[in-house]
Formats: sequence, structure tokens, C-alpha cells
Amino acid sequence: MELNFKEGGLLPAVVQDATSGQVLMVGYMNPEAVERTRESGLVWFYSRSRAALWQKGETSGNVLRVRELWTDCDQDVVLVKADPAGPTCHTGEVSCFFTPLDVAARSA
Amino acid sequence: MELNFKEGGLLPAVVQDATSGQVLMVGYMNPEAVERTRESGLVWFYSRSRAALWQKGETSGNVLRVRELWTDCDQDVVLVKADPAGPTCHTGEVSCFFTPLDVAARSA
Repeated sequence: MELNFKEGGLLPAVVQDATSGQVLMVGYMNPEAVERTRESGLVWFYSRSRAALWQKGETSGNVLRVRELWTDCDQDVVLVKADPAGPTCHTGEVSCFFTPLDVAARSA
Repeated sequence: MELNFKEGGLLPAVVQDATSGQVLMVGYMNPEAVERTRESGLVWFYSRSRAALWQKGETSGNVLRVRELWTDCDQDVVLVKADPAGPTCHTGEVSCFFTPLDVAARSA
């Protein structure tokens, strides 16, 4: 299965806790980050701000161990089901998604 | 909470089934898509290929009803917890993520 790299050669990668299903973070992968992730079984990303590859948890120790990798029907998003070694967010939160947004209307 | 729109004014939006936790799809939102989603309680995206706003399920009827909206620590990704009215993928699959990718190594 080939991934569909376009628009700067980066794809969003959604990381989900393989056990709880909680969405932990979204990062970006270039082809080399995908390759390193597939070869090492640990999640690698490409940092747009630093223009560099980085292994999640390289410094903090809070690595993400890959259980499953999936792509979508357009092959332009990666879904990683992973076992996190600790909190994923740099703030110390389990997930980077800890900020709710208001919804004005909720359809029944 | 202000979202951090940059790089063309689009943010990735991850849609997760509010009940099962399954990741259903990833789309992109511009400020107006976020606004319409918050106001209507139904998920709207911005199509990059068609350069137009679209309501998910507008044609198929398989709308996504918003239960919760979240953003991440950088405010540059949206997480939607939604109740899907039917299969989310245009192929008829429940989720767009039905294609596995091999992982060569799995760390213990």
C-alpha cells in the first residue's frame, strides 16, 4: 500500500491509545518518518517548525509503541494505534486534546 | 478559545465515534467550517480539492452529529466526537480507516 504524499510531502498522523481508544495527539509524518515508524515499532514524526525528524518520547521517555498502523481511503492520513509509555502531551496531560470547544447547537 | 489557523487557514479535524471511540475520518476545516459545525451541531468541512465548504452527509444522509468538540495543546487540530447517522466512508465502510499498513518491527 503506497501512501499518497502531496502538498509538501507530509501526512497527518492520528495517534490513538490502542487500549482505551483515546485520541492522544496528531503529528505529521514525511516518508522517512513513516519508514522509521514501521521499522522501529516506535512513533516518529516530522516537525514542521524544526524541519527535523523526531522520535516521540526521545527526550521524555514517553514513547509510543505501535500496535497497528492504518491508512484511510485516500491514503493521505495515517492512524496509529499505540501503547503510550507515559503521558503523551508535553504539558503532562495524558492526551493533547484536553481543551473543549463550545458547541452552540446540538442536533437531536 | 481561539484556534490557531495557519498554513492556508485549514486545520485537520479528526472525527471519532462518540460511543465506540472508533476513528471515522479526518477532514479539514477553515474558520467558517468550524463556525458552521459549532452553530449547527453537524460536521462541516472544507474540501481542498473542490475549494468549497461541505456538510458531511449532505448528499448521502450520513451526517455526523456533534457530541463534543476539542482542540489540542497547540490549538491547531480539532477533535470531533460525533454520532454518525450511517457509514462515514464514501465506500460504505463504517470508517475511512480500513486499510492496514505493515509494521516490520514491534517493540516489546
